Amino acid sequence: MPLTESNLDELLDGLKFDEKGLLGAIVVDAATDKPLMFAFLNREALRLTIETGKMHYWSRSRSKLWLKGETSGHTQDVREVRVDCDGDALLFKVDQSGGACHTGFYSCFYRKLGTGGWVEEGVERVFDPDKVYK
Amino acid sequence: MPLTESNLDELLDGLKFDEKGLLGAIVVDAATDKPLMFAFLNREALRLTIETGKMHYWSRSRSKLWLKGETSGHTQDVREVRVDCDGDALLFKVDQSGGACHTGFYSCFYRKLGTGGWVEEGVERVFDPDKVYK
Repeated sequence: MPLTESNLDELLDGLKFDEKGLLGAIVVDAATDKPLMFAFLNREALRLTIETGKMHYWSRSRSKLWLKGETSGHTQDVREVRVDCDGDALLFKVDQSGGACHTGFYSCFYRKLGTGGWVEEGVERVFDPDKVYK
Repeated sequence: MPLTESNLDELLDGLKFDEKGLLGAIVVDAATDKPLMFAFLNREALRLTIETGKMHYWSRSRSKLWLKGETSGHTQDVREVRVDCDGDALLFKVDQSGGACHTGFYSCFYRKLGTGGWVEEGVERVFDPDKVYK
């Protein structure tokens, strides 16, 4: 994306990263707007995402920066970036390769609330996680 | 929504609230899947949301529980609740009354990244915030 380096610094300075230096990000399918996943970015992850056009995140559990798809090959190409009114949440519209979820589903939100609890409904795995994450 | 009290307790116990007792929530328009806002819920906000069918949140800045629309009248009626693979993020599909954003826009994500920074594009306010928040 054609932001200059100084434009990008200014943009990053204008966002409200939380006390851990993170921003929440909604990631949706660019073609359908269907939510794929929710994750966190720190400043460096956002810089890399904007510079490369591929989603990068900060893993809270592993305390490390990661390129989505670095293990699975299921990368996310960024088509649009949006920010919310408060500057503390981001929205990315992406072209998802393979599936977004490590369980093999296209979206991480494959369970909906039914009368007795969470149920999987009308969804099939798009890949076999045992084959993708060896 | 027809969950029994014990079902609801079990459901809440199965979620991974963070160290502050919060879960992130993506809120989208039930008809179009377009993202409206991102916010946090604690256990009580989620219980009230499921019991009443109206979105309740935890405000991090005001440290209080709030019913969305309690001031503006712009409530959100829940049509579907989803959870992500890790149980640490929620997705709500809602019917939005008025607009979701306190600035008067239908969605909080009214700015997109352009070549020089954030730009408002093709969006009009659906209400006048000066008249709604007196």
